[in-house]
Amino acid sequence: MDIATIIGILLGFVVITTAIVVGGGWQMFIHLPSLCITIGGMLCATLIHFSLPQFLGIFSVVKKTIVAKIPPPSELIQKMVNCAAISRRDGALALEQEISTLDNSFFIKGLQMVVDGQEPEAMREIMSLEIQNLQDRHSTGKKILEFMGAAAPAFGMIGTLIGLIQMLRSLESPESIGSGMAVALLTTFYGALSANLIFIPLAGKLGIYSKVESTAMEMITAGICAIAQGDNPTAVREKMQAFISQSRREEVKANI
Amino acid sequence: MDIATIIGILLGFVVITTAIVVGGGWQMFIHLPSLCITIGGMLCATLIHFSLPQFLGIFSVVKKTIVAKIPPPSELIQKMVNCAAISRRDGALALEQEISTLDNSFFIKGLQMVVDGQEPEAMREIMSLEIQNLQDRHSTGKKILEFMGAAAPAFGMIGTLIGLIQMLRSLESPESIGSGMAVALLTTFYGALSANLIFIPLAGKLGIYSKVESTAMEMITAGICAIAQGDNPTAVREKMQAFISQSRREEVKANI
Amino acid sequence: MDIATIIGILLGFVVITTAIVVGGGWQMFIHLPSLCITIGGMLCATLIHFSLPQFLGIFSVVKKTIVAKIPPPSELIQKMVNCAAISRRDGALALEQEISTLDNSFFIKGLQMVVDGQEPEAMREIMSLEIQNLQDRHSTGKKILEFMGAAAPAFGMIGTLIGLIQMLRSLESPESIGSGMAVALLTTFYGALSANLIFIPLAGKLGIYSKVESTAMEMITAGICAIAQGDNPTAVREKMQAFISQSRREEVKANI
Amino acid sequence: MDIATIIGILLGFVVITTAIVVGGGWQMFIHLPSLCITIGGMLCATLIHFSLPQFLGIFSVVKKTIVAKIPPPSELIQKMVNCAAISRRDGALALEQEISTLDNSFFIKGLQMVVDGQEPEAMREIMSLEIQNLQDRHSTGKKILEFMGAAAPAFGMIGTLIGLIQMLRSLESPESIGSGMAVALLTTFYGALSANLIFIPLAGKLGIYSKVESTAMEMITAGICAIAQGDNPTAVREKMQAFISQSRREEVKANI
Amino acid sequence: MDIATIIGILLGFVVITTAIVVGGGWQMFIHLPSLCITIGGMLCATLIHFSLPQFLGIFSVVKKTIVAKIPPPSELIQKMVNCAAISRRDGALALEQEISTLDNSFFIKGLQMVVDGQEPEAMREIMSLEIQNLQDRHSTGKKILEFMGAAAPAFGMIGTLIGLIQMLRSLESPESIGSGMAVALLTTFYGALSANLIFIPLAGKLGIYSKVESTAMEMITAGICAIAQGDNPTAVREKMQAFISQSRREEVKANI
Repeated sequence: MDIATIIGILLGFVVITTAIVVGGGWQMFIHLPSLCITIGGMLCATLIHFSLPQFLGIFSVVKKTIVAKIPPPSELIQKMVNCAAISRRDGALALEQEISTLDNSFFIKGLQMVVDGQEPEAMREIMSLEIQNLQDRHSTGKKILEFMGAAAPAFGMIGTLIGLIQMLRSLESPESIGSGMAVALLTTFYGALSANLIFIPLAGKLGIYSKVESTAMEMITAGICAIAQGDNPTAVREKMQAFISQSRREEVKANI
Repeated sequence: MDIATIIGILLGFVVITTAIVVGGGWQMFIHLPSLCITIGGMLCATLIHFSLPQFLGIFSVVKKTIVAKIPPPSELIQKMVNCAAISRRDGALALEQEISTLDNSFFIKGLQMVVDGQEPEAMREIMSLEIQNLQDRHSTGKKILEFMGAAAPAFGMIGTLIGLIQMLRSLESPESIGSGMAVALLTTFYGALSANLIFIPLAGKLGIYSKVESTAMEMITAGICAIAQGDNPTAVREKMQAFISQSRREEVKANI
Repeated sequence: MDIATIIGILLGFVVITTAIVVGGGWQMFIHLPSLCITIGGMLCATLIHFSLPQFLGIFSVVKKTIVAKIPPPSELIQKMVNCAAISRRDGALALEQEISTLDNSFFIKGLQMVVDGQEPEAMREIMSLEIQNLQDRHSTGKKILEFMGAAAPAFGMIGTLIGLIQMLRSLESPESIGSGMAVALLTTFYGALSANLIFIPLAGKLGIYSKVESTAMEMITAGICAIAQGDNPTAVREKMQAFISQSRREEVKANI
Repeated sequence: MDIATIIGILLGFVVITTAIVVGGGWQMFIHLPSLCITIGGMLCATLIHFSLPQFLGIFSVVKKTIVAKIPPPSELIQKMVNCAAISRRDGALALEQEISTLDNSFFIKGLQMVVDGQEPEAMREIMSLEIQNLQDRHSTGKKILEFMGAAAPAFGMIGTLIGLIQMLRSLESPESIGSGMAVALLTTFYGALSANLIFIPLAGKLGIYSKVESTAMEMITAGICAIAQGDNPTAVREKMQAFISQSRREEVKANI
Repeated sequence: MDIATIIGILLGFVVITTAIVVGGGWQMFIHLPSLCITIGGMLCATLIHFSLPQFLGIFSVVKKTIVAKIPPPSELIQKMVNCAAISRRDGALALEQEISTLDNSFFIKGLQMVVDGQEPEAMREIMSLEIQNLQDRHSTGKKILEFMGAAAPAFGMIGTLIGLIQMLRSLESPESIGSGMAVALLTTFYGALSANLIFIPLAGKLGIYSKVESTAMEMITAGICAIAQGDNPTAVREKMQAFISQSRREEVKANI
């Protein structure tokens, strides 16, 4: 679970809400028609831009980014070294029991292939393809979020133009100008807020998360293939450590 | 037929129209001269930027993007494997009958070349060139739509400037200020709406569609060339499956 | 002569002028001092950015883009095949007469070198250098037009700022506010119109024209070198056809 | 210590503060709620975009950029040549005493490895990895500062929209319009000022500093490895001088 | 001396000044505090972004761009061919006298190395490094000018925000609104004018000048190395002519 994302979104809404409530008249800031124009228009443009499966997939991609827990490298290496030791001592079949103690599906799938006695080369190819697919999914998700972050302010502006034109029609009643323009500005506010607090930062987080998760998967792939080749625990550890920096590597050594 | 594009455009106009009708005075939003400045100016700039054949070709490219049905990979593989089996059993000439059951013109053209007994190398070259031409057409179409998406708001702003200058001339009659400015803002509204709901998202969809269609054509090319070389159905299937990801590949196997 | 460019510019001005005349008060839109600030300022910035010869060259580059007639590939191939046949039948010197029937200076120069009996390798080098120089000239012209398209709205805004500051000085006479602001907005209007209807689309057309013309020149180079090597007409045709796509190639075959 | 950064920030605030104080009413420019929306919103968006450790690391990266003193190349070469002479005369172990006279931790770490008698190849690999990690840290820091520079004006605009909507609600009391709009504009002012005077220039400085520091570290790596291989002082000097330009190189020679 | 730059800047200021004087009230456009905010703020941001030596170096780089006279290629070739003839006839030492007739310091430095009898390879390396350093200086200068061109309008907007907030504070006296807003807009005017008439075009000119000067230096390098190798005048001329286009090359031949 990525705490920074949740803290950021919650805190952001607290800050904005406080500013609105303190200034008075918070009821004005809740206006369903304005929300429909901004978010509805943005979603329609996204539907036109992307295909239906890509559009529907974005929600699960974002949910996984926030919820998914990527184990720290040291924990992955620790587990992999244990598996290597078991495999050397009791044979690959003994890893069957070990699988039930894991919660990372990619790790489980790899270990299962070792138990099944697949060729290391075939395993590496299958696992690389899976990493590639994950990166493609993340990259499409990033593009969709970035497009949403550009479309939301644009439809906010379109909503404000509609409101302005409607307000200017009835300029003879001066007392209605203020509230008319306030409503017109609401769509711009919704568009700017959703883009800058949600879509644009989430697209960035997805990019960073994608890099972290694929590095973890590459470490698992290196470890699994080493076990399949019958490497000893030390060789497994060293192959996985090549993916992390020197300073954090020492700390890992101590863990094992 | 790409449902997402049609849903997106229809829903988008429903959302915007509802917002306009609910707010009152929808008659104000229909103003032919304003539409002429925005769309006319944008089309003129597009004519200057691109050559006449490129400009005229954009409509058929967009129509094809929305209407064309790209068969799912599994269906293509299924058909190709059938053809391979027929070719192995009854010879290439027996494929003649199979052609009438197909509706994909690229597939038909390829199969016809197999029946005609062309060399696999020459076939691959001809088919690659056709894929290249398709990508060029799509890439030019994408550039034109992106240019339209940039030119429409620009001419919207030019129209608003014209309207503002005309309105400011007769500032002595305050009651006309409101309606004058409302009309002036209409061109900006037309420009922003057409760019953000039509041109920019359609340019994106064209890019995604181009990738999907050229992948399908590459799969057909790989399959046709394999049949021409006399490969057995299993080899044909495997060559075509190399273009799709592992997870969707399993599902394909079940289909055959 | 590029019809699309001329239609686009004329039609664009018709659309804008109609909008101005219909709205009334077209005299307001002609204001020499405003034009001087926008276009003069833009030209000065262009002079600072580029060197004097580059700046002066832009007019001839643009004129040539609009006026120049690039013959269709089939016509070029037809002529070149005729020349190849003459050269094979009567020798290279017989091409001397053929030169007078041509109007493409690059074609003439190449044919003259064949008559002069130059080495094919030397000819190819000289002609490639000329193509390179043409592309450099076009690329510089495109950069200048793009810079003009960015500078014109900027100086339009500077002019509007000057007008606004002058208008705000004499705010006590309310009746003059309207006309003062109308004049101030004129420079922005000039800048936006010239950039979006002229400079930006022309820069795009120059890029497309550059590609078409250099492809034609490369075809001529291929044909001329083939004749110089004594290739037969069929070989000349095939070498030139390698530059055009399959579908248009068939049509060419029919022409010969 | 980078004087330019400190002078720039101090002088910038002096200029802006003077302009505010001279114009009168400086109390208006200090408004805590506006500051909270702009800076708070920007920090929240940054938290969502980046991971928690990256976010927390930015402060130490910036502090180091301003405080850290990168010795001039000539000084580094002078010290390294001294070490090389000592190593040749008294052996690598004699360098132990030299370490205490240094204040550059990367230099110390390298020299310690020479004293420990590590292999030159292993040393080069360890030191290169450290340079790589430093560049990654700096590059992440640059991206965070650039994102802050884009998010601050965006949240400034969001704050202004909130203020405008609240002001328009109570348009009936004209005397409050002025102060309401002044407060609304404050967030835009905070956002523009912090982005243009702090975040954007600091991101640039971080990029320049990163290049200077990694060049210094590469020079140290080259020198340390040369000493470990037993090169004489002249060879050490020449290997380090390859990183600096000819004109500054002469000046270095004189120092030794 | 680059005439286009000087004409452009002078003419630009004449155009803008005329527009201001004709419109009346030119005294309003001279306002020292506004100038301090815009230019001072921009300079401070530049100081933070770049290092002190880079910042101080920009003035000499710009001065050299405007003042420096780059001799036309034909003149360089003419002089080099003369030197080659002297060197062949009277030996390299006879070039000593020739040096005093030159005013290009790079040419002089090269010729001095020939007189000193340096190795051609060493000379080429030294001269290439000097060209590299020149390009680095120009590229840094271009980046600084581009940053100034982006920072000036930003600080202009910050100044306008300060002025607007101060004006809105005292909205009760309507007669002061006009002059207050006019002063507020001045900083935006200063920022836009300095960016679009000075910084952005000068950055472009620096890029073009850098290309021209480094080509001239490469020609000199080629010529000097040819003389050092003892090439005859014709070979020297041909090696230098390889840097200029065919059409201008003929004209050069006539000069010698």
